[in-house]
Amino acid sequence: MPHITLPEGLAGIRSLAAYRPDTGAALYALAEALLRGTESSFSQAEAELIATFTSAQNDCTFCTCSHAAAARYLFNEDQSTVDAVIENYETAPISEKMKALLAIAKCVQQDARTVTDELVANARLLGATDRQIHDTVLIAATFCMFNRYVDGLATVTPLGIEAYEPMGERMATLGYVPPKPAV
Amino acid sequence: MPHITLPEGLAGIRSLAAYRPDTGAALYALAEALLRGTESSFSQAEAELIATFTSAQNDCTFCTCSHAAAARYLFNEDQSTVDAVIENYETAPISEKMKALLAIAKCVQQDARTVTDELVANARLLGATDRQIHDTVLIAATFCMFNRYVDGLATVTPLGIEAYEPMGERMATLGYVPPKPAV
Repeated sequence: MPHITLPEGLAGIRSLAAYRPDTGAALYALAEALLRGTESSFSQAEAELIATFTSAQNDCTFCTCSHAAAARYLFNEDQSTVDAVIENYETAPISEKMKALLAIAKCVQQDARTVTDELVANARLLGATDRQIHDTVLIAATFCMFNRYVDGLATVTPLGIEAYEPMGERMATLGYVPPKPAV
Repeated sequence: MPHITLPEGLAGIRSLAAYRPDTGAALYALAEALLRGTESSFSQAEAELIATFTSAQNDCTFCTCSHAAAARYLFNEDQSTVDAVIENYETAPISEKMKALLAIAKCVQQDARTVTDELVANARLLGATDRQIHDTVLIAATFCMFNRYVDGLATVTPLGIEAYEPMGERMATLGYVPPKPAV
């Protein structure tokens, strides 16, 4: 049960954005720009994969399940990639460049001061651009926020993967549209 | 030295918002609503104090020094409060309600799933509203993001407290206005 009274019928971050619409609007604008914006250096699928990975590292069930559903929808032909990354990114069927970026994301999740010149140089050697290094750090940092916001207030977390499938499809196709404010 | 090439002459979060203006705009809108907005359940001084406390827990020099400078400016008559909270919030000259809220912020910073019903009930008993509990969790979560973003890319961090005084005064009076985009 949530720690505070939140709008009924909404789960996770949507219940919080409906509860406080002004901060909710800024948070949804951030997610939209970062995961789907024209300025992103990643495909939507890649950005959702980094978001899923970070949320899994933080053991945030709601964010992991919902962004994994979005990433599975976007990867389409190779949906098992997402689950493999959650299980162990080092052995997952992803590029060496993406592995090097997820290694940076993992440092950001744990203690951002541990991102070393060597980790960054390695990602660059494998083809990562400055912008991709930047976007990786910001996606990881942003999900460290969303995960804490959702779990710190013990928001409603649906059980069962099927509850997240329509959520993932909506995020992948319509994007991050804030819910209506609670009345 | 920053891990990527950032606009010269800017430090910390400002260099990042100038580097990627679309996400920068969303991040500044979030800070403005959360720390200074009309919907905030805290005074600006209180909100900046929670931001400073979280940043200190994350050992983020740039965010701790800049938000401490803003909080010191806003507390005006009792500037030593800020330094006492950074040193040890449990013995600092702040209300028991604020101590109970900072205990929640500390859990959010470490692992948000550790915010217990007991901690929330205690804050409520000491006078905290639902909205203040919400805003505490969101401020702590948000600074876990800002701290990671700033440190994960090793942005320029001025040394010496005097560099942060004009920054703090600007944040306290003009608020969170994004820098001009880098050309």
